[in-house]
Amino acid sequence: MAVPHLTTALTGPLLDLEKRILAAMPEIEGWFRAQWQEHTPPFYGSVDLRNAGYKLAPVDMNLFPAGFNNLNPVFRPLAIQAAQVTVDHLCPGIANLLIVPENHTRNLYYLQNVATLRDTLRLAGLKVRVGSLLPEITAPTTIELPDGNSLTLEALVRRGRRLGLADFDPCMVLLNNDLSAGLPEMLQGIDQTIMPPPEAGWHSRRKSRHFAAYDTVAGFLAELIGVDPWVINPYWGVCRGVDFQARTGEECLAETVRQVLERTRTKYRELGIDQKPFVMVKADAGTYGMGVMSVKDPSEVVGLNRKQRNKMAVVKEGMAVSDVLVQEGVPTFETLKDAVAEPVVYMLDRFVIGGFYRVHTGRGDDENLNAPGMHFEPLAFETCCSEPDAAKKPDAPPNRFYAYGVISRLSLLAAAHEIEALMTERYAAPGAVAPESAAAEQPEPV
Amino acid sequence: MAVPHLTTALTGPLLDLEKRILAAMPEIEGWFRAQWQEHTPPFYGSVDLRNAGYKLAPVDMNLFPAGFNNLNPVFRPLAIQAAQVTVDHLCPGIANLLIVPENHTRNLYYLQNVATLRDTLRLAGLKVRVGSLLPEITAPTTIELPDGNSLTLEALVRRGRRLGLADFDPCMVLLNNDLSAGLPEMLQGIDQTIMPPPEAGWHSRRKSRHFAAYDTVAGFLAELIGVDPWVINPYWGVCRGVDFQARTGEECLAETVRQVLERTRTKYRELGIDQKPFVMVKADAGTYGMGVMSVKDPSEVVGLNRKQRNKMAVVKEGMAVSDVLVQEGVPTFETLKDAVAEPVVYMLDRFVIGGFYRVHTGRGDDENLNAPGMHFEPLAFETCCSEPDAAKKPDAPPNRFYAYGVISRLSLLAAAHEIEALMTERYAAPGAVAPESAAAEQPEPV
Repeated sequence: MAVPHLTTALTGPLLDLEKRILAAMPEIEGWFRAQWQEHTPPFYGSVDLRNAGYKLAPVDMNLFPAGFNNLNPVFRPLAIQAAQVTVDHLCPGIANLLIVPENHTRNLYYLQNVATLRDTLRLAGLKVRVGSLLPEITAPTTIELPDGNSLTLEALVRRGRRLGLADFDPCMVLLNNDLSAGLPEMLQGIDQTIMPPPEAGWHSRRKSRHFAAYDTVAGFLAELIGVDPWVINPYWGVCRGVDFQARTGEECLAETVRQVLERTRTKYRELGIDQKPFVMVKADAGTYGMGVMSVKDPSEVVGLNRKQRNKMAVVKEGMAVSDVLVQEGVPTFETLKDAVAEPVVYMLDRFVIGGFYRVHTGRGDDENLNAPGMHFEPLAFETCCSEPDAAKKPDAPPNRFYAYGVISRLSLLAAAHEIEALMTERYAAPGAVAPESAAAEQPEPV
Repeated sequence: MAVPHLTTALTGPLLDLEKRILAAMPEIEGWFRAQWQEHTPPFYGSVDLRNAGYKLAPVDMNLFPAGFNNLNPVFRPLAIQAAQVTVDHLCPGIANLLIVPENHTRNLYYLQNVATLRDTLRLAGLKVRVGSLLPEITAPTTIELPDGNSLTLEALVRRGRRLGLADFDPCMVLLNNDLSAGLPEMLQGIDQTIMPPPEAGWHSRRKSRHFAAYDTVAGFLAELIGVDPWVINPYWGVCRGVDFQARTGEECLAETVRQVLERTRTKYRELGIDQKPFVMVKADAGTYGMGVMSVKDPSEVVGLNRKQRNKMAVVKEGMAVSDVLVQEGVPTFETLKDAVAEPVVYMLDRFVIGGFYRVHTGRGDDENLNAPGMHFEPLAFETCCSEPDAAKKPDAPPNRFYAYGVISRLSLLAAAHEIEALMTERYAAPGAVAPESAAAEQPEPV
């Protein structure tokens, strides 16, 4: 199976980062252990990483991951074991679990993901069924899938404050639906544990909150391993109240782009990195790679043409964009069969359970790869992400994957902080002031 | 890689057992979850299984497993993840762990086992060093191993009630030494957690206690899945105060052999099994396959010749045998390249992490395979032991391995009961009366 290689021109600094990560492994793992005693890991998550040689950083963190069908099946036992650990806390005795998926009944690849997730949880010893929010699902509906598996969608039934199926009372509800369109009435006021909590859906979640929390945890880890936090953390800023169609907020965007480019340029100069800075402009609540553009100059976000405005103005479920994240672009220096590639790492509870490369033959190393035309290559680690080998060179695949696992778990930890904040409203509501940690580090222009 | 096949003549009943195990999976896993909340799993363990087609049962349970070097390295991430779960409970923050191995400095295969165990725990993020009980180890001594790895043995240092090395204060001590020769002074009155507890060493442990505890848990599981407990549990009896050299206790042995053979013969008749019953006569505190004989008739244990008496009278570390277990023989119907084979399943915390086949080209299906001339074949499960597939036939390898995992974990649960009893002295001391559960089911002839 394909193991990706790094373009060698810039491997020096990443080797340094990986050496430090390997050398500090007992400290890193001890620190994570302590953190997970204070903060409950999300049920699951996936992290998009960018490896620029001089920098290894998360650029997106998904709390409702699809794509379980793209994971290497050889490592499914890891996912099963992780699920068993999670379920220990959640359901005593026989565990009935209800998956509530997205409403895509025609996207068979998505449904393969749901079937894979269902099978994994069944193999962990749970009784698992799938309840659809779609009103047209009134009776069990079995869909045959391209990989030979099948998925039965059933009608959700609400009994007072309990959610289930006609003949199934789950102890917990697992959302594989990111709630972009808001929290359906069916899911409101439920007594059972819903994981991830509905508050973490895209109707209320903001990427900027995630990266504000990531600033904090990345600062701790960077200190622990003795590196500049920037080598694991992209700069960012946010603009609120943007209306692409009405052309409101262009000045804020241009100014934020300018600031992030300038800070990046300064850092490049400081570290002798010969790269042209760019930023990714993204809907702060967007997903599925919608509402994303790659920008090298502030002028590019002013006076967008109709096509660009249409692209940026709405995301999944036709939701209008109003908050916009401007994130330092981290070029990917990974290629797989001459196409640019970025790793996506999957976690269940606090454990790395696999990953794949998102590969795009038609895109550059400074572009969004989450776009039509992409495909997936399972991470082919002989030894998966938990097993570095100090006797091997730091860029040997198992070691590189350990570093990927550390950075992904760091993003997962940030998500745990983020969920706590969403649950307790400790941070300000979206549209109000920026989170403190972001405000301190990343002044938000208005 | 080799996947063992079953002799097909007698697959009927095992298929039935496996079908029941697969069908009851959520109940089995829910039951185990509840059990592990009441009973702490041993740090690690290995179980020797025998698969007779009509019966799948543990015949030995090791609390100080060697052989980690024989596990399939592809599944090491499972062991790492399991170790991380264990360490969560044991060591907060940075975890220093000290392994105390057996005193075999010339058995390089054993030392490869210690090195593999050390590496696995290091990869779980622990700082791991190895402290030897040997008085001749006064300075760090590095031994190069046949597989290219190396192992450094260091001198144990006692500071008051803490055990460590000159510059290493562990939060826990992991015994990979079964204490056949007794509990060394160095390990007495230690403040740190020692795992497994020294009380579980072979100086005080008795196989009969394990199988008494196994009678109880096997009874529960058999009821849960609706099978005769006998299909997962061998009959047994025990004789105390046997002295092979002085020919004391031969009558007890002969009578116990007669009873176990008779009960087995009755069960064979009841189930229509066309087999000649046999028993294994084993030192109740023995290990390493020493002090074991296969017997088909009570007369065989009376009037042993000098060679037989010498073989049975002493076990590891020259310890004299006084308690003798008589266990129903379970023939192995598994063969690997025409040699008889028995699976050995490894667990860490409550998780199956791998296994191998013990193979002996020179032994029959009714003999002890743990004998000079044996070799090991890693279990080659593409998907390891946690992943049955309901869509496949019950005898497809992943399903067979799931069943192996269930029975092995059942034996592990019995070991947890056994350790609790050893720690609290709830059961009678060895040499006194038989454990109650054994006494009820298995009258102990005197």
